[in-house]
Amino acid sequence: MKQVVTFGEIMLRLSPPLNYRLTQTATFEATYGGGEANVAASLTQLGMPAAHVTCFPANELGQAATQHFQRYGVNMEHTVFHGERLGLYFLEVGASMRPSKVVYDRFDSAFANLRPEDFNWEEILKDASWFHWTGITPAISASAAQACKDAIQTARRLGITVSGDVNYRRNLWQYGQKAQDVMPGLVEGCDVIVASENDSEDLFGIVPQEGAQHSFTSMAEQLIARFPTVKQVITTRRETLSASHNQLKGILYDGQNFVESPSYDIVPIVDRIGGGDAFIAGFIYGSLTTNDQQQALTFGVASSALKHTIHGDFNLATKAEVDEVVKGNTSGRLLR
Amino acid sequence: MKQVVTFGEIMLRLSPPLNYRLTQTATFEATYGGGEANVAASLTQLGMPAAHVTCFPANELGQAATQHFQRYGVNMEHTVFHGERLGLYFLEVGASMRPSKVVYDRFDSAFANLRPEDFNWEEILKDASWFHWTGITPAISASAAQACKDAIQTARRLGITVSGDVNYRRNLWQYGQKAQDVMPGLVEGCDVIVASENDSEDLFGIVPQEGAQHSFTSMAEQLIARFPTVKQVITTRRETLSASHNQLKGILYDGQNFVESPSYDIVPIVDRIGGGDAFIAGFIYGSLTTNDQQQALTFGVASSALKHTIHGDFNLATKAEVDEVVKGNTSGRLLR
Amino acid sequence: MKQVVTFGEIMLRLSPPLNYRLTQTATFEATYGGGEANVAASLTQLGMPAAHVTCFPANELGQAATQHFQRYGVNMEHTVFHGERLGLYFLEVGASMRPSKVVYDRFDSAFANLRPEDFNWEEILKDASWFHWTGITPAISASAAQACKDAIQTARRLGITVSGDVNYRRNLWQYGQKAQDVMPGLVEGCDVIVASENDSEDLFGIVPQEGAQHSFTSMAEQLIARFPTVKQVITTRRETLSASHNQLKGILYDGQNFVESPSYDIVPIVDRIGGGDAFIAGFIYGSLTTNDQQQALTFGVASSALKHTIHGDFNLATKAEVDEVVKGNTSGRLLR
Amino acid sequence: MKQVVTFGEIMLRLSPPLNYRLTQTATFEATYGGGEANVAASLTQLGMPAAHVTCFPANELGQAATQHFQRYGVNMEHTVFHGERLGLYFLEVGASMRPSKVVYDRFDSAFANLRPEDFNWEEILKDASWFHWTGITPAISASAAQACKDAIQTARRLGITVSGDVNYRRNLWQYGQKAQDVMPGLVEGCDVIVASENDSEDLFGIVPQEGAQHSFTSMAEQLIARFPTVKQVITTRRETLSASHNQLKGILYDGQNFVESPSYDIVPIVDRIGGGDAFIAGFIYGSLTTNDQQQALTFGVASSALKHTIHGDFNLATKAEVDEVVKGNTSGRLLR
Amino acid sequence: MKQVVTFGEIMLRLSPPLNYRLTQTATFEATYGGGEANVAASLTQLGMPAAHVTCFPANELGQAATQHFQRYGVNMEHTVFHGERLGLYFLEVGASMRPSKVVYDRFDSAFANLRPEDFNWEEILKDASWFHWTGITPAISASAAQACKDAIQTARRLGITVSGDVNYRRNLWQYGQKAQDVMPGLVEGCDVIVASENDSEDLFGIVPQEGAQHSFTSMAEQLIARFPTVKQVITTRRETLSASHNQLKGILYDGQNFVESPSYDIVPIVDRIGGGDAFIAGFIYGSLTTNDQQQALTFGVASSALKHTIHGDFNLATKAEVDEVVKGNTSGRLLR
Amino acid sequence: MKQVVTFGEIMLRLSPPLNYRLTQTATFEATYGGGEANVAASLTQLGMPAAHVTCFPANELGQAATQHFQRYGVNMEHTVFHGERLGLYFLEVGASMRPSKVVYDRFDSAFANLRPEDFNWEEILKDASWFHWTGITPAISASAAQACKDAIQTARRLGITVSGDVNYRRNLWQYGQKAQDVMPGLVEGCDVIVASENDSEDLFGIVPQEGAQHSFTSMAEQLIARFPTVKQVITTRRETLSASHNQLKGILYDGQNFVESPSYDIVPIVDRIGGGDAFIAGFIYGSLTTNDQQQALTFGVASSALKHTIHGDFNLATKAEVDEVVKGNTSGRLLR
Repeated sequence: MKQVVTFGEIMLRLSPPLNYRLTQTATFEATYGGGEANVAASLTQLGMPAAHVTCFPANELGQAATQHFQRYGVNMEHTVFHGERLGLYFLEVGASMRPSKVVYDRFDSAFANLRPEDFNWEEILKDASWFHWTGITPAISASAAQACKDAIQTARRLGITVSGDVNYRRNLWQYGQKAQDVMPGLVEGCDVIVASENDSEDLFGIVPQEGAQHSFTSMAEQLIARFPTVKQVITTRRETLSASHNQLKGILYDGQNFVESPSYDIVPIVDRIGGGDAFIAGFIYGSLTTNDQQQALTFGVASSALKHTIHGDFNLATKAEVDEVVKGNTSGRLLR
Repeated sequence: MKQVVTFGEIMLRLSPPLNYRLTQTATFEATYGGGEANVAASLTQLGMPAAHVTCFPANELGQAATQHFQRYGVNMEHTVFHGERLGLYFLEVGASMRPSKVVYDRFDSAFANLRPEDFNWEEILKDASWFHWTGITPAISASAAQACKDAIQTARRLGITVSGDVNYRRNLWQYGQKAQDVMPGLVEGCDVIVASENDSEDLFGIVPQEGAQHSFTSMAEQLIARFPTVKQVITTRRETLSASHNQLKGILYDGQNFVESPSYDIVPIVDRIGGGDAFIAGFIYGSLTTNDQQQALTFGVASSALKHTIHGDFNLATKAEVDEVVKGNTSGRLLR
Repeated sequence: MKQVVTFGEIMLRLSPPLNYRLTQTATFEATYGGGEANVAASLTQLGMPAAHVTCFPANELGQAATQHFQRYGVNMEHTVFHGERLGLYFLEVGASMRPSKVVYDRFDSAFANLRPEDFNWEEILKDASWFHWTGITPAISASAAQACKDAIQTARRLGITVSGDVNYRRNLWQYGQKAQDVMPGLVEGCDVIVASENDSEDLFGIVPQEGAQHSFTSMAEQLIARFPTVKQVITTRRETLSASHNQLKGILYDGQNFVESPSYDIVPIVDRIGGGDAFIAGFIYGSLTTNDQQQALTFGVASSALKHTIHGDFNLATKAEVDEVVKGNTSGRLLR
Repeated sequence: MKQVVTFGEIMLRLSPPLNYRLTQTATFEATYGGGEANVAASLTQLGMPAAHVTCFPANELGQAATQHFQRYGVNMEHTVFHGERLGLYFLEVGASMRPSKVVYDRFDSAFANLRPEDFNWEEILKDASWFHWTGITPAISASAAQACKDAIQTARRLGITVSGDVNYRRNLWQYGQKAQDVMPGLVEGCDVIVASENDSEDLFGIVPQEGAQHSFTSMAEQLIARFPTVKQVITTRRETLSASHNQLKGILYDGQNFVESPSYDIVPIVDRIGGGDAFIAGFIYGSLTTNDQQQALTFGVASSALKHTIHGDFNLATKAEVDEVVKGNTSGRLLR
Repeated sequence: MKQVVTFGEIMLRLSPPLNYRLTQTATFEATYGGGEANVAASLTQLGMPAAHVTCFPANELGQAATQHFQRYGVNMEHTVFHGERLGLYFLEVGASMRPSKVVYDRFDSAFANLRPEDFNWEEILKDASWFHWTGITPAISASAAQACKDAIQTARRLGITVSGDVNYRRNLWQYGQKAQDVMPGLVEGCDVIVASENDSEDLFGIVPQEGAQHSFTSMAEQLIARFPTVKQVITTRRETLSASHNQLKGILYDGQNFVESPSYDIVPIVDRIGGGDAFIAGFIYGSLTTNDQQQALTFGVASSALKHTIHGDFNLATKAEVDEVVKGNTSGRLLR
Repeated sequence: MKQVVTFGEIMLRLSPPLNYRLTQTATFEATYGGGEANVAASLTQLGMPAAHVTCFPANELGQAATQHFQRYGVNMEHTVFHGERLGLYFLEVGASMRPSKVVYDRFDSAFANLRPEDFNWEEILKDASWFHWTGITPAISASAAQACKDAIQTARRLGITVSGDVNYRRNLWQYGQKAQDVMPGLVEGCDVIVASENDSEDLFGIVPQEGAQHSFTSMAEQLIARFPTVKQVITTRRETLSASHNQLKGILYDGQNFVESPSYDIVPIVDRIGGGDAFIAGFIYGSLTTNDQQQALTFGVASSALKHTIHGDFNLATKAEVDEVVKGNTSGRLLR
């Protein structure tokens, strides 16, 4: 089977146990994750081969991060070891009306300082069926943006499907270029775009037509018009009732049809991080294994719902488990 | 006070901390339990003397399991030490729509290889008021089935009340005999049977009469007709809203009256394992200390509800705590 | 900025991990707290200087307790080291219908045996803006009651605002004097009183007028009439749906106006201990930084709601976090 | 088999993990122990039936302490539940030149307030082969001393062997009587006394004869002369090289013969608490199962050496394991 | 680079924390290991590609074990998923004179029930430079012995170096064949044999010549004479001073030369399990990267010494770290 | 009492539990430390007031680090909050021949980017008796070096004793200036210098005279000649027998006298980090409380020895505990 390839930064995630605050704790639970790598790891758990491409410092932490993804079967052979430090983030898990909180410490990481020429995309992508990137990568540094662009263009040339999660985070863009200038050049090579109305307005100035029945459809229509390679625009709708209770569904527009998944009630939430990545992984899996975008979308949202019940950054759920949720079996009845 | 005697296998239970998956964990929390022993341990917490009879390997694990039940005051003096291994099971605790999952590793255990002649039931049961078994025991091996039958017949002869939880688990019956052939011979010595409509249909071919107002009553009526020693048929009704939220009530038919307990809302569930055993323990306790089957049934369900809030396989709740729930005090107000 | 000064006992709190019962555990999580010190620590987190005054044994546990409050910025320089033991309590955390439970072991502590003359209140209170005490202190011993009275009278003389949480716990009063005889002498020096209708009836024989529209207002009116220095009476109303789910609001009467805060839904509860102290801390903070009693009350209840999501005895929430809740932002949306 | 009966206080022991200091820790490891109960528990592990007699508060901690000893097979049926609090102590584990340190919090415990008339010694001792007490018990309170005296006298009357570990701790004796006045009345009913030269001088004014070849023998000779029921005086000699490294041997004098055990090198020490109790348990076991005091003494010291490698207050070593050490097999070679 | 291939069972290892006994613990630390797989994992850490071949049950535990070795870079693609249970063992870690102890529960595992025809050795070994097996595999079952023989013969035919660690464990051989009958057929295809004098006597009846200067040399000479493919016989000499302190060296005979490594002092021992496997991995690494058997032997023993300081079954030491020890740098000076 | 003031970076220290390797762990133990702050915290434990001056990011980690030192009584009121990230380091604890290892991630920290003008040294030092700095600070950045110089010069002007630990770490100096150019300007304001022969040669080109009886004395003599304010040169001599076993003594030269402390044997080492800082803290304490440099030196080394038995970066030992070691009481005998 051909593999899905993802590209992006992986960080060490440090979180106090349970709901302890950062200022209280004397221990941190450590795991490793990153928006794109989470997609790869979620895919391998579903049974789909996946490789992740990144840059790590050549020290014990780069090794530990590599091993964390190897453990779950992600192909890490294209990792470049170069640079000084592994980016990291601190996660404090909230409850009820107290939000979870992330403190980033990722500037000047090995990944930010990667050298685009270290990545031979022709070689890396030679067995790929799909390439996925997110808007976090071009936000990190000019060289990361360049490597991302190289990858997208190579993938396009090789006829590989490309998906991009635009994921606009204003405060990440600090290296001197504007998201608004960089992102269009990346989106224009994509087949699938993950974007909300806010993202589209901020990045591309796209405003849903006044009076449009559905703001998402209106936005997606304009996005597709602007970037003709794009065939599908997808996103999730999350109802945040509390830090412990969310409702989630997915929506899609393909230029002609508006598709909606069922909505899932998630309570209690075990770990919310990586929920969006699990959605994309599920959607990619569904797209590659069925030719039904309704099924792919629902599989994506069911994957994401399950992710919220699993500790760590990615979705350790099997295809069979996601299928149960897709079938509506959300009763959590004990399996012996 | 005379004691309740139970008979069956005890396993080492290994579960990852919190909601971690089996494939993620580097530590297991260990406890010991088994359907029948859980009844005994729940009874001693309520203040009722209880002995459990089982077979362990003569190694550190058999010792640890013995000590675990001794700690909670269960009389373990009749334990036979013989055989090679302690059965075990792995428990993964789910959340929300992700079910909890049990992976058994119990075949060929010391208990499965017990020698019926090692158990002197006349002696063991000489101070007993009640004997309890479950359908798991005869499912394990021919010799376990034989020992169980010996115990039931001795109890009957000594005028001891006998309860059996038929608890049919199809995939356990692998030693060459059929549940349908073995179970009738065990049920025919019982006073109280725990069984659902499904159990009765699978094991005894009993189908609720078409058009019956209440399928349980119809089933129980036929069961009592078939097995004339049986005086009460009981079961729980569980509404599984999610892995973290259940609703529970109990029902009973005594040949004439249909009795129903209040329904309890359990959210969040701390540990669902042993909920049924706590129900039976509570029902036995209620039956032995009152002569009111409504009270006994409600006491059983309240016990079971409390069990869901307690870590481990059995119900570490006192009589006073169960009484509070029976009185309707389910508000969980802080006790100083 | 002037500081708030609090006075009272601090105990070592020992609780099993998660929802384990006291009889199950082989480890205890340790923290330190006390009704009045919790107010001080909650205030320093909000940015308000606070000092706590207490008496500890001159051993490692007294040191550890001192250091615990120093860590969070509470001024502990007035601690008296004298006596033999640190009071302690065991906390078992319930779930659903199983209540949390506290087992006290605080008799004959260093604090109970304090010598009133060891506290130089003129000196201690010289930079104070507010003094806070609770009814637990005079319940502990005659000398504790005396020291409390000395502090209140000194504060009054120095023109410092005094608040008292009457917090009547019948089984604490064991040293030979009656709460009914002691408490009036303390309340008569106060500006703000925290009391429920039950407290007022038990301690002062105040019964809400028959037919009064609002029992709290009727009680508060009489309390103010009896103790003319008292300007505000406040309390919380807690709806205990289960050990894991409460609803909370605050009410106030100032002799003329009845003021009510919004009600907050708290689910799941992480740690309920110190919820009342966080309310008082928030109210003191609000009172000292605004001159709007509606704002102060709502700030107090929002503080208390947040406390329920935080491990330990006091409210590690910043002013900005409480403000978000006050603004109605209780959705717990992830902060990056 | 007849059982050994011990009598004394059991405390909750709280210790930080690893070598953390009391002022650093946020968790305590909890276990339960007491000099006399440790002897009972060490005996049951060797295969000798044993009962411990004590007084606990009727709360969760009294229950937990009871269950802790039940777990290891100690007969706890004679426990009296009466009084307010369980005594406790904090243990900080040292290393190298930093000593381990104990902070006691045991005054005014349920045991200190026991009522001697609650113990029916005739009944309790009816199946006993041996009764053991220590000098800690009469140090706690007048009523504890009285109960201890009652027990010794009853045992003597019933022809049961009595051993006493005089274990003089000056700072424990705070209830108004002097050890020097109380202890002789207890020792005079004993067969075996555990005492060092210091103990004997402090308690009985016995000073080894000047010029005596062996100070222990000289002391023991005088002790036996003074208390004619005493047949054996034993003690351990501990060389404290560091908190992590000790050497240990045992010595005995029976009025005629001086007996000495081999010396054992213990490095690293896992847990030093209860080392002396394990020695006595081993000596009692050896005395009851052989009639060779050299064997009994060596078995005692080997038991004690093993105890130092085991976490908790008592010696979880089997007879077979002690026998290996007695045989000189101290190489710690892996057993498969 | 060509890879080393190993074949054998992998078990779940469960051990209490620190030095707790199996009967004390409520948690187990979990890791996965097996004599042959440990060699593979130790090699990948040194930078040598390695694949391990085994048979796992198709459940979460088989997955977890696979992932554990994938994490450290072992190629697990040839794993066969078939059968019911993962073998496991319990490890209690001793200290000082208390030995560590292993309780096995490995009978009737998926590996024991493997089907030899499921392993395509031509394919598996096509990129191999070296094949390693141990005497544990043929001890487990006839089918395991058969698969092992198939592998050895294929390797021989393909010109791959074969090493075998005869590792005779009498109590493992329970399936009806004798080690003495099976082992010669496996050894006869090997280039390198790991064996002690005892192993050789028990398995092959080889007794060192009376009066031989060195019993190992005499044994090895005869072994080489009996099995002409064997070019090197190696083993370790372990001086077991205590469970916490060992001394270790390696010896080798190649038919002409006797070679000896330096001796390493290991104190304290962190984890002794897998020490022998680390020795073999180091020797294989040394043999494949140098053509100096003295260097290979010393590299093997230095690897093994380091393993004793590392938690888990295999040697997470890099080549650079082993080189330091080889150079005599055993001072453990802090590296910044 | 006047306080000691220290200045330097504080980092978050993350270490796997026990002896686990960085690549193995899923949890980190967190503490905070830095060479100069460790001196301050060690002093407050001895009973000497101390303030530490540093620069932290205005986030939860800066807060947590502040609170960590507040807990132990260090005055943190002069902390400047400015900049982006808290420096951190990963510590892997070795054993036997495996060294402990530190992986730094401290570049571009808030401290490195401090603004010298944010520190008002006149104000900060107004109550100081002693100022201490280390050579790590000027290595971090030009602005840190400037602030350090400002502090030294102000201290000198105010007549405050100044000590500097030159602590040369070549790979830290990366901001463009050379240690050899910067350090002399700092040392020239000092009274006490901590330096080894290697440090002096690397930084100042000072080479012990050929044929000198004692290389340290020869070096110190030249150092004092070069920097006339310097009155004492001190250092420790560490014999590293293994990662678990060191021997330690201290030496001093004051221009006329060579002074040497006893040597302490430390086995096992609990935590080696901060050993040098504890030495300096002890020496400062001794110097300020006695006027005997032999006593001060011995007190310093005894402090350092004790530090090695304590978890974390600084010496949680009291004066009384250090005094015991100074008296030669290193037997670690249990204290009750």
